[in-house]
Amino acid sequence: DLVEKVMDYFSDKNSYFTGVNITITAGPTQEALDPVRYISNHSSGKMGFALAEVAQKIGANVTLISGPVQLSTPNGVTRLNVTSALEMHQASLSGLKNCDIFIACAAVADYRAETVAEQKMKKQPGIDELTIKLVKNPDIIKDVSNHQNRPFCVAFAAETQHLEVYAKDKLKRKNVDLIAANDVAKNGQGFNSEKNALSVFSSEERFDITLADKKAVASQLLKIISQQYALKNKGFK
Amino acid sequence: DLVEKVMDYFSDKNSYFTGVNITITAGPTQEALDPVRYISNHSSGKMGFALAEVAQKIGANVTLISGPVQLSTPNGVTRLNVTSALEMHQASLSGLKNCDIFIACAAVADYRAETVAEQKMKKQPGIDELTIKLVKNPDIIKDVSNHQNRPFCVAFAAETQHLEVYAKDKLKRKNVDLIAANDVAKNGQGFNSEKNALSVFSSEERFDITLADKKAVASQLLKIISQQYALKNKGFK
Repeated sequence: DLVEKVMDYFSDKNSYFTGVNITITAGPTQEALDPVRYISNHSSGKMGFALAEVAQKIGANVTLISGPVQLSTPNGVTRLNVTSALEMHQASLSGLKNCDIFIACAAVADYRAETVAEQKMKKQPGIDELTIKLVKNPDIIKDVSNHQNRPFCVAFAAETQHLEVYAKDKLKRKNVDLIAANDVAKNGQGFNSEKNALSVFSSEERFDITLADKKAVASQLLKIISQQYALKNKGFK
Repeated sequence: DLVEKVMDYFSDKNSYFTGVNITITAGPTQEALDPVRYISNHSSGKMGFALAEVAQKIGANVTLISGPVQLSTPNGVTRLNVTSALEMHQASLSGLKNCDIFIACAAVADYRAETVAEQKMKKQPGIDELTIKLVKNPDIIKDVSNHQNRPFCVAFAAETQHLEVYAKDKLKRKNVDLIAANDVAKNGQGFNSEKNALSVFSSEERFDITLADKKAVASQLLKIISQQYALKNKGFK
């Protein structure tokens, strides 16, 4: 029966991802305002790098597209460094021909400056206020999930309130298979923390991963992904 | 005569700064937009940390007020960590009672968000543009240089054009004793680089420090500072 087939598939845990091409985005993006200033966010990249490390260990061919972070590349992982959301968008889409699973773990800036000043902006004496005009960045995960070479898609959602409502809404809007949501307002998890806790949603199910170090959370999340990926690939979903 | 007195003062090079209290600001500041986003700049803090290390070695009591950087505290240096320009401003002014020389090496954000969102700002569907309203941060070095407990003041200027014009203008506007200017548009120096080159201006003189690693540049700059500080303290300027 169905359950038996799935269990068989997962009995050889060391080969979950053998030969599977996984692309993972990680870290923040930096959106330049001028040659020295930028807008960014507090993503450390640790969650994405933990996912890359574990995925590689269980057999996947891992490409890690990373924004500016202070982390070394896990063994056996192919790393592509990018700075801005536009660069991350381009790197993500250009790799889709050889991508089975795409995990969007990066904290991509939603907006970038409409114009980037070529010279350092000078503070103007007497002018006490300044407005910066921002324009929307391309939506990387949405463009990946609607691409003709669509891989199995996993998105992240960092929220500070209404976790489940926002996450389920994002699952639909982004057209992804799974969404991994974490409450970054809670102490000890999320941005720049060593630990994380996730609530993972498919269109039908919810899986909770309790607070643990990011590598343990990565292992659990990859197990959920591999199960859902297998079910989908085998036509069970 | 005057020259002899000055030379005598500097003959014992190991005691340039014995007992002198030096406060150094270093690194960028981060100005929050919401719980996860911020505006910052590419300052690595390396120049300020090099100054702190060298100043401590030549006898000064060093307080290092540092923005968020990935650097360890030099031996024997008292470090105060801050995030925003407002925090750096407060830390700087509250230490002036015991400060003989203040070196403003940090790349302080000129502006901060008028309001910091308490919750993570959500991207609004259909809204492709966004403006952020910024207000001016307090001018740390100007408030230090105009304080009743005014120390000897050194400011930095990171420029991408018109180096000397901007630097000399800043020297006057900020009411400082010395300004150390570097051209961050040049390759291999300045922000996040291991090396630096400086043009140092007093109201009457110019000193050029050629491209070298930041610790060597710090040594040369501290020599200039100690000479100018001594001249001023002994009533020669």
